[in-house]
Amino acid sequence: MAPHPLDPIFHPRSVAVVGASSKRGPASFVDHLIEQGCPRVYPVNPRGGEIAGLPVYPTLASIPGPVDHVISSIPASLVEPMLEEAGAKGVRSIHFFTAGFAETGEADRLALQDRIVRRAGELGVRLVGPNCLGLYVPASGLTFAGGCAKESGPVAFWAQSGTNANTAIYDGQLRGLRFSKVVSFGNAVDVNAAELCRYALADPETEIVGTYIEGLPDARDLFAALRALAAEKPVALLKGGMTQAGARSTRSHTASLAGSAEIWRAAVAQVNAVLVDSMEEAIDMLVGWRYDAVPRGGRVALVVGGGGVSVQGADDIAAAGLTLPDLSAATAEALREITPIAGTSIRNPVDTQALWRGVGLAATLEAIAADDHLDALIVQAGHGWGAVSSPGDARKRQARLLSELEQATPRLTEIGKPVAVVVPSSHEPASARLNGELMQQIVAAGYPAFGSIPAAARTLQRLDRWRARREARG
Amino acid sequence: MAPHPLDPIFHPRSVAVVGASSKRGPASFVDHLIEQGCPRVYPVNPRGGEIAGLPVYPTLASIPGPVDHVISSIPASLVEPMLEEAGAKGVRSIHFFTAGFAETGEADRLALQDRIVRRAGELGVRLVGPNCLGLYVPASGLTFAGGCAKESGPVAFWAQSGTNANTAIYDGQLRGLRFSKVVSFGNAVDVNAAELCRYALADPETEIVGTYIEGLPDARDLFAALRALAAEKPVALLKGGMTQAGARSTRSHTASLAGSAEIWRAAVAQVNAVLVDSMEEAIDMLVGWRYDAVPRGGRVALVVGGGGVSVQGADDIAAAGLTLPDLSAATAEALREITPIAGTSIRNPVDTQALWRGVGLAATLEAIAADDHLDALIVQAGHGWGAVSSPGDARKRQARLLSELEQATPRLTEIGKPVAVVVPSSHEPASARLNGELMQQIVAAGYPAFGSIPAAARTLQRLDRWRARREARG
Repeated sequence: MAPHPLDPIFHPRSVAVVGASSKRGPASFVDHLIEQGCPRVYPVNPRGGEIAGLPVYPTLASIPGPVDHVISSIPASLVEPMLEEAGAKGVRSIHFFTAGFAETGEADRLALQDRIVRRAGELGVRLVGPNCLGLYVPASGLTFAGGCAKESGPVAFWAQSGTNANTAIYDGQLRGLRFSKVVSFGNAVDVNAAELCRYALADPETEIVGTYIEGLPDARDLFAALRALAAEKPVALLKGGMTQAGARSTRSHTASLAGSAEIWRAAVAQVNAVLVDSMEEAIDMLVGWRYDAVPRGGRVALVVGGGGVSVQGADDIAAAGLTLPDLSAATAEALREITPIAGTSIRNPVDTQALWRGVGLAATLEAIAADDHLDALIVQAGHGWGAVSSPGDARKRQARLLSELEQATPRLTEIGKPVAVVVPSSHEPASARLNGELMQQIVAAGYPAFGSIPAAARTLQRLDRWRARREARG
Repeated sequence: MAPHPLDPIFHPRSVAVVGASSKRGPASFVDHLIEQGCPRVYPVNPRGGEIAGLPVYPTLASIPGPVDHVISSIPASLVEPMLEEAGAKGVRSIHFFTAGFAETGEADRLALQDRIVRRAGELGVRLVGPNCLGLYVPASGLTFAGGCAKESGPVAFWAQSGTNANTAIYDGQLRGLRFSKVVSFGNAVDVNAAELCRYALADPETEIVGTYIEGLPDARDLFAALRALAAEKPVALLKGGMTQAGARSTRSHTASLAGSAEIWRAAVAQVNAVLVDSMEEAIDMLVGWRYDAVPRGGRVALVVGGGGVSVQGADDIAAAGLTLPDLSAATAEALREITPIAGTSIRNPVDTQALWRGVGLAATLEAIAADDHLDALIVQAGHGWGAVSSPGDARKRQARLLSELEQATPRLTEIGKPVAVVVPSSHEPASARLNGELMQQIVAAGYPAFGSIPAAARTLQRLDRWRARREARG
């Protein structure tokens, strides 16, 4: 199969950063590209000098080797001559970090955007943006931010927002996601969601797709691309501007016309993509697919340590459209043998001190997973609240919990039901640190991790419904 | 006014911990009481010896002075003789940390619970619990956990779950709440939600009430108490067991019959208490009242730093039932003067780099707050995502943000519209720590802080509706 026409954008031999600043730090593309291992980076700035040990070229023309990709961080008013230079240099793609185009709502800036698009088309230069963060492609050493994983993975994320692209990468990698490609594509004057979805379908490195879309200049094209993609690969879709107020703000953000919420809901359901309501929910779905946590039904057991959490968790799971069936007599008997009676429950939810004491957790999980009445487990781990009086004790408990979880892994894998582990977040620094560490350990142990019981429940429910629809279509 | 009959429970001259263990740490009531400043603590254990430098008494009878309050952490099977001893010693109240009664569903344990209740009544001893954490009363040095604030405050929380009582205290105090009394009352065989609500109405130290309730043995009594309380003081109520699955688990947890969700919803709305769906939402409401963040209408401005967040935030706010009106021409003009055009928006949401750069934020907030089209502001602060490449830079930005916020405080106070500040949580340790610190600084600066834009929006909407209902009743 011939590579998709977008493919070269993701594999540049070299990258020039036009408007590279000697100011280092979080906003420096040059620093980030070097850290990411980009094989050839050329800073460009008429001031010359050096940035991060690299010579700064005054112009694109003065760069000795070929330049495949350009990152533009010059002001909008300087973009036209740079585009001419890029065309002459044989540049294949330009990512416009530069903002201040159609999204400002000002006529002269819209006209400028139109001129650039037309001229880039004549020159055969593909455009990403403007008004966006561009490309993260670990295999090519491309990135727009620091601290991004160097390994590739099966997830692609297409985001019409730089913040959401960052959220996908940062929050996603904490939860075990690794990416084939992430594209922040802003005003989408050339590379857009539809083309990226067609690319994802063709891309052998991409198995799972998430996308954040604000506008649809061509709804028919986008839904056709989504339909083809979702028939082959799972797709989670977040739509910005589902309300009137949100739609108005897509115009200020990426000059996008948002379209009606009803049409989106209907169209996305029809193609069996999963429409979510926040970036957290998008990442939850990607985690579910990545860890094969797709249940074959909606019957869930909740395993917690604490009565209030049991009740709230049961309410949350039922509200998400799942059921909490009674455990079988055999399961109850097995649990009774390993669970002290006071302050516990061996009904469903199972309220067990095994989660606190870290003793008997493996046996508890194995007994529950084997129960034929159930399709999935949700296990609450971590510190639900407040100050940690003894971080040392807490770490010991966490280590025991993890060791029991690992001990149970072979049997749980054999049984094959999803085991979603919940690690809450916190604003209390000590709890937050402990829970952050625990989440990373749980992810490293191969489990899908979620930030709350409602999040885990909603995800399992959506995965189950997605599976059922997919099977119904053959 | 004569003190309420429950009042003595909250002001014991001394506390005996029966079944005190020489094991120290998170589960040690003795340690926690000493840390909290309880003036007189008597550990009781037939083994004798010393705990935390205090002599251990073999029996209640052997304690030299009077004992007003007993914390029981002996097994259920030993409780009856202890109760006799307590009666003889003139004890006023016993808190049964001891579990293993009616909530086990076993007939002999239910019978034991019934015998204890009857006998305590005969002896004139009030019971808290069983199967609960008991009392946190900072003014009396009473607590059930370590790390609780020593200062009192205007909030009472009545929780039929120990976990939720802890959540109220720990998560609440991070967000500026201080408590008059917190009671974890478990199976509620004697002291129950209705009596605690009557107490809250009478208690001059309590201005705001939150409660978590699982069961209602006497619905008429509870709703009468709630009605009287909510007519005078704001009440947030979380009901455990609103679904069938949750209701089943209230039986295992506190032997409670949950009642029907429809009746609860109707009854709570009728008395103008605010029914919430999670502990986080309960704390959100208490924070709203505590910081006087009650808007006089549903028109909100959102101030953020980032386009994707603008769109999502606008969708979230609209979904919460609030509106995001256009700003007035005068406000837009004032903002245009202080906001660069590229990558920003001065529509509503206002997408301003002032939040990142920390320059111009005071002027931005003051201009928006003065706009007659608006009833409240939601301001997103903190790190929305992932790894912090430079904690030093982030701290400097936070310091500038805080300084601008403080600079704006006099004018914002004069205008008097709620300004809800959002500080997200994170599982990334560095972000989590920075955001935790920022939240504490924002709380110290006198602002109500929330964990997400949806949480802030939902709270403002509920506060506005609560205010409107209250005013409609005169």
